[in-house]
Amino acid sequence: MKIIDGKKISNEVLDEIKNHVESRVNNRKKVPHLAAILVGDDGPSQTYVNSKIRACERVGFNSSLFKFNDNITEDELLNEITKINENKEIDGFIVQLPLPSNIDQEKILTQVSPEKDVDGFNPFNYGKMTLGIDTFIPATPAGIVELIKRYKIDLSGKQCLVIGRSQIVGRPISILLSQNQSFANATVTVAHSRSKELEKLCINSDLIISAIGIPKFLKSKMVSDNSIIIDVGISRVVDETSSKGYKIVGDVDFEDFSQRDVMITPVPGGVGPMTISMLLKNTLKACELKD
Amino acid sequence: MKIIDGKKISNEVLDEIKNHVESRVNNRKKVPHLAAILVGDDGPSQTYVNSKIRACERVGFNSSLFKFNDNITEDELLNEITKINENKEIDGFIVQLPLPSNIDQEKILTQVSPEKDVDGFNPFNYGKMTLGIDTFIPATPAGIVELIKRYKIDLSGKQCLVIGRSQIVGRPISILLSQNQSFANATVTVAHSRSKELEKLCINSDLIISAIGIPKFLKSKMVSDNSIIIDVGISRVVDETSSKGYKIVGDVDFEDFSQRDVMITPVPGGVGPMTISMLLKNTLKACELKD
Repeated sequence: MKIIDGKKISNEVLDEIKNHVESRVNNRKKVPHLAAILVGDDGPSQTYVNSKIRACERVGFNSSLFKFNDNITEDELLNEITKINENKEIDGFIVQLPLPSNIDQEKILTQVSPEKDVDGFNPFNYGKMTLGIDTFIPATPAGIVELIKRYKIDLSGKQCLVIGRSQIVGRPISILLSQNQSFANATVTVAHSRSKELEKLCINSDLIISAIGIPKFLKSKMVSDNSIIIDVGISRVVDETSSKGYKIVGDVDFEDFSQRDVMITPVPGGVGPMTISMLLKNTLKACELKD
Repeated sequence: MKIIDGKKISNEVLDEIKNHVESRVNNRKKVPHLAAILVGDDGPSQTYVNSKIRACERVGFNSSLFKFNDNITEDELLNEITKINENKEIDGFIVQLPLPSNIDQEKILTQVSPEKDVDGFNPFNYGKMTLGIDTFIPATPAGIVELIKRYKIDLSGKQCLVIGRSQIVGRPISILLSQNQSFANATVTVAHSRSKELEKLCINSDLIISAIGIPKFLKSKMVSDNSIIIDVGISRVVDETSSKGYKIVGDVDFEDFSQRDVMITPVPGGVGPMTISMLLKNTLKACELKD
């Protein structure tokens, strides 16, 4: 088993971004500024936002957190987004999901100015991605693409199976990897909860991207030799030896693959760290597009 | 072999639209109005536009044709689109493709107001489609979906192979058929020019949608019994018995399937007629959204 080291690659990307920022500062150009909107007190959301802000500090970005109680109305939130859209100091911003159920997520994400939409979830940017037009690619699929590029994995004509059809992972990565791009050109299949013969699909694939959130779903016997496995699953399972009482595991039964001739992204330390570095890369891009 | 009769279904859809229009007229509501922009003297484009306008007459729509010489500049064309965007009489319009090479197609399609974008090619609408949000679905994939619905074909969990990844057919139909919708939920594979083992992919599929434009590419031996074949190919081949000197053929070697237990869309008379009726359905929708 060979590890695809997302943590290492993510650190390389963050170092590159940091160098860019230093060069911008030396050239008296604007320092990139990422803002995050957080509504309510969801624990994991707070954790995600904090880690994004810490990453900004690491690369020398400015950052802002706009925190609202979960009794904010949709109109008030739309209004706050308009203010951030118009704020020239902020280059890019994200709306941390999920939002409270009384707020229409689609309406909120559409309000984010496409030029500042570093999560890439405004339908205009999502459409550009689907059409193969340069735009902000959502962070998780962008991170997977970056791993494929930096490990020089050649996918042209290869069978790629994406398990999961979510808007944030499965759908976009399936589109990106089947486009006519040097890193892509794979023959991509999207499987999901209704798919039959999933084991047959897995065994016939050169690359498997699993994003279903079922701990240890993918077993060694399900894949062929020389497969590449990208594990996007993040599940909490009870772990009494951990001080938190849980540990994070992926969709892949990692230990089961220890003797197999495959490449694999670990969880944690695989796709997860890439997500944050790609968000910052999008923010740098948003800033540079205004230069 | 059982025929999926696109011509018959298209006529049913047109009759339904006509009834809607009559009912609107009786209720003193606005008559839908479709406009088309045609640049240059491309023969097939002229033919397509004419057939769209004839279809408008058949269902009782108003229609307009804006015809420009191929020396129109990009700025002039953008300006013309702005005028149509602002024209309250016109509910929906299309820009007939291809455009002359000096005009940026992406810029032009983005200029079309999303509310009037009945071709669904503005990135904002294309993104909504990809995200599963209600919008204008491009006519050819919408026509395929309509055939699947009206023939009550159950695709849930079935293997679907889309051959071709174009923006107007392969990409959108692959997305639509894998979404969580009652007519969809298929396990969809997108194959293209770089794909290997295409014959193996075909034989393992329940539904094959071919959109590559290679006459008689798909042979009987390549597919399994009980397959469903949607032929989106349109190629001209020499035919000295025809007064035009050519005939239209699809990607499917139709005669080769005559003894096979498959369902199949003929060319002509399959997907083609559906395309126009779906464009008119989108125009009716655009009109009704303003009621």
